[in-house]
Amino acid sequence: MVEPFGLRLRERIDAFGPLCVGIDPSRIAIEAWDRTDTVEGLEFFTLAMLEASIEVAAAIKPQVAYFERFGSAGYRILERLLSEARDSNLLVIADAKRGDIGATNEGYAEAWLRDRSPLCADAVTVSPYVGLGALESLFVAAQDTGRGVFVLAATSNSEGRLLQTARTDEGERVEDFVLRSVAERNNRDDGLGTVGVVLGATRERPAFDLALLGGPFLVPGVGAQGATPSDVGRLFVRSARATVLVNIGRGISGAGPERSALRDAAQRWRDDLSNCLS
Amino acid sequence: MVEPFGLRLRERIDAFGPLCVGIDPSRIAIEAWDRTDTVEGLEFFTLAMLEASIEVAAAIKPQVAYFERFGSAGYRILERLLSEARDSNLLVIADAKRGDIGATNEGYAEAWLRDRSPLCADAVTVSPYVGLGALESLFVAAQDTGRGVFVLAATSNSEGRLLQTARTDEGERVEDFVLRSVAERNNRDDGLGTVGVVLGATRERPAFDLALLGGPFLVPGVGAQGATPSDVGRLFVRSARATVLVNIGRGISGAGPERSALRDAAQRWRDDLSNCLS
Repeated sequence: MVEPFGLRLRERIDAFGPLCVGIDPSRIAIEAWDRTDTVEGLEFFTLAMLEASIEVAAAIKPQVAYFERFGSAGYRILERLLSEARDSNLLVIADAKRGDIGATNEGYAEAWLRDRSPLCADAVTVSPYVGLGALESLFVAAQDTGRGVFVLAATSNSEGRLLQTARTDEGERVEDFVLRSVAERNNRDDGLGTVGVVLGATRERPAFDLALLGGPFLVPGVGAQGATPSDVGRLFVRSARATVLVNIGRGISGAGPERSALRDAAQRWRDDLSNCLS
Repeated sequence: MVEPFGLRLRERIDAFGPLCVGIDPSRIAIEAWDRTDTVEGLEFFTLAMLEASIEVAAAIKPQVAYFERFGSAGYRILERLLSEARDSNLLVIADAKRGDIGATNEGYAEAWLRDRSPLCADAVTVSPYVGLGALESLFVAAQDTGRGVFVLAATSNSEGRLLQTARTDEGERVEDFVLRSVAERNNRDDGLGTVGVVLGATRERPAFDLALLGGPFLVPGVGAQGATPSDVGRLFVRSARATVLVNIGRGISGAGPERSALRDAAQRWRDDLSNCLS
């Protein structure tokens, strides 16, 4: 029997706190460490961020776009990261924002959620523009394998608001529709937190009662994007906090490249977040 | 000076007709050709579909999910496809449905739209859940390099309707908001068709006047998904037809693996589509 994703995540958060380290090897981030923006620079940045996360963070979140910049050679570095994170007791959320219609999502499920794939992660982020029903094969694959899917609900950027607060013909806002559909999906089967959502810390609390989600929250927007750990505390009532994972990327990488400075920064964020979510 | 994407696409459509061959190497498709679902099977399927498209289609649309299933090894096959298509006078639309916030899209732009990338294509599909403004760096990169971006507007699946027909606070449907925003983006700069949209042939004609888009249309949903070439003809008034590209995937691959049968199927679809869009 595979242990469901929600339980695995809660165990890690209990043990290490709510920090998720965002690994964002952009050109700018790599060059800020006085490295060249090459596959070698990508590898150096990635492995240093991984090392800083071990036994400090519950999870890491590599941003797939920055690996994809280098094509198959960049994906080889991502594969190495996935494999080393697995050996280091870190959950990996592949931040890929995937999502398509029909059978295509079986392809994405095979890529990110199936054991035999070299890109297999603990969870993957997906975009719901194609409709929640279209993502079902990803949810099924995650449930089968004890992995997770995080669906974008309210993103941390301001440009997303207009679309995400549009109202369906039933009068529900799109972000609430996503939250409610995920809650229904989590309650329908015994997936125990298979489907989570992405909820920006820069946004107001949605109308939908977050304590009813039945799945984890991935919260970007803290640090460089302007929200604080206290904002996250305000977003979630106490009963919704057990599986809240807060992403910090530039707030940690900005302290690098020195290993001990990276680790100190990660620990400070972990402690701040733990205080605000306890 | 780089020739804008809209012009390059129109030239191909004038020369070869409106067919875009969908290259969808799913497990099911590969096994239907009596090949094993391995990297070798992926390569065989992909190159046979490419060969059937040369001088019959204006463009090909590889579905990136099916390459990603094999991780970096699958991406190496996609890179080979991109390079061989370039030598064969075919435009390539990478069907990746990418899209994220802020600087992350610079990563996706580098991956899919910049010359130095091994994954560089002529255009890439993107998802607008994060807001149209968030995608600006992709539009800028496309304009700089004479490449294109296709934004999901109304997808061909039924599950997408509820979200895509939700109304913004100004009372506009999400799909119309996407179409209007793309039209404004195309009119703002001299990108000449840099930004296109994905519009399913299975959907009704949106309220927004398609003739005003100022960019190309990528139309899925014909064939296996139920719509016909006549449905595409009904969707577009004559003045909007110059840059309509209709994707056919399973309708062609289902005739394989024999090379001449694939080519015959592609030619039949091309002729049918040309008739309905003339």
